[in-house]
Amino acid sequence: MNSSPAGVRPIAIIGGTGPAGTGLALRWGRAGETIIIGSRDEQRAQQAAAAVRQRIGPQANVSGMENSAACAAADILMLTVPFEGQAALLKELKPAMTAGSIVIDATVPLASGVGGRASRTLGVWQGSAAQQAAELVPKEVSVVAAFHNVSADLLATDAPLDCDVIVCSDDPDAAQLTRELAAKIPGVRALDGGKLENARIVEQITALLVGMNIRHKGHAGIRITGLPPSAYR
Amino acid sequence: MNSSPAGVRPIAIIGGTGPAGTGLALRWGRAGETIIIGSRDEQRAQQAAAAVRQRIGPQANVSGMENSAACAAADILMLTVPFEGQAALLKELKPAMTAGSIVIDATVPLASGVGGRASRTLGVWQGSAAQQAAELVPKEVSVVAAFHNVSADLLATDAPLDCDVIVCSDDPDAAQLTRELAAKIPGVRALDGGKLENARIVEQITALLVGMNIRHKGHAGIRITGLPPSAYR
Repeated sequence: MNSSPAGVRPIAIIGGTGPAGTGLALRWGRAGETIIIGSRDEQRAQQAAAAVRQRIGPQANVSGMENSAACAAADILMLTVPFEGQAALLKELKPAMTAGSIVIDATVPLASGVGGRASRTLGVWQGSAAQQAAELVPKEVSVVAAFHNVSADLLATDAPLDCDVIVCSDDPDAAQLTRELAAKIPGVRALDGGKLENARIVEQITALLVGMNIRHKGHAGIRITGLPPSAYR
Repeated sequence: MNSSPAGVRPIAIIGGTGPAGTGLALRWGRAGETIIIGSRDEQRAQQAAAAVRQRIGPQANVSGMENSAACAAADILMLTVPFEGQAALLKELKPAMTAGSIVIDATVPLASGVGGRASRTLGVWQGSAAQQAAELVPKEVSVVAAFHNVSADLLATDAPLDCDVIVCSDDPDAAQLTRELAAKIPGVRALDGGKLENARIVEQITALLVGMNIRHKGHAGIRITGLPPSAYR
């Protein structure tokens, strides 16, 4: 599995009408990627796509589809859904996933999903939401965990970000492709976070950042320091 | 409990002869703090203190004592011990701790402590090594979790660091004192990480950084971005 020139492999952003999904659509659409925003509701997906197109301009290649159709039309599937909907959605989409697809999972098992605090996480039996995802997709589909620690609010603005994206996966090629996509977002550096099992740490960092956001009314992100330049991206 | 002018309250660095302990002794000693390096072996403590004094110069106020004596001579106790020794040492030191003391715990429950990988953590029943510490100290002693993500190797150099220190505690005054101490290290910004329970996340970040250090031969640290200036210390 090799990375292709920008725009050749469409990216479906599943559950993509929220700030994280539309923010990624905006950033990647600007970078020349072909984006399909997916939603349970086709019309909402098309409205979100139209809004993103308007912000990018006439060169934008951003469309909207119902989630399953988006899934079937792309082999890079970016998942931006709340944890409480992740497992059911993946079960539903499984038949639409083509062999060789990549699922990039940004799900964080925040306790707010079950009425708790967004500054706490739930324990996931498999170790992390990303590992749960890996159990639910077809065998020939790779799961990559990434983008958990990027502020959705800042992603949806036009300003460069000040944040690193830690990428965890058991598939090195899928991880590399994801790091390349992350690095297309202005201000973002991408880092190898190791195996998918490490997603448990990266997911939990989000809860820590949420707590800081609540205390300080901010949009916290993280940077990793102290590594050689070759480590970034 | 209020913070005192530099040097008035001695800081005992328990298990302080390793790179993290001597690095903190060096940085705080330079900032004018009174430091007692503690060790199981009084002579090793005194040797480590002499080496630190030599690096700081004649104004240094750094001595060495056996751990229990160090503990009795100070009410700020900085714990820099491997996880596998933490519980036993705290039980041993408990009688020497004075009411109103602060234990600053930097323990990370790395799996390497039981022969596993330093890029993985062990589950701690209480949630984190810091919460285990809180269970083992006298009731009148506050526990603060901090300094987990600072590279011990870089701490032991003379260069400014490029790292934030996330401070977690259920005692706001003890947390503030710890943030003030952290901010005395050149290059370090201190941040409120919330309650002590959040130490579980901060401790695990270290395992993630260790993995990055192994992959990239680096000395990884973290910075938190996106918060207002008032959030930093």
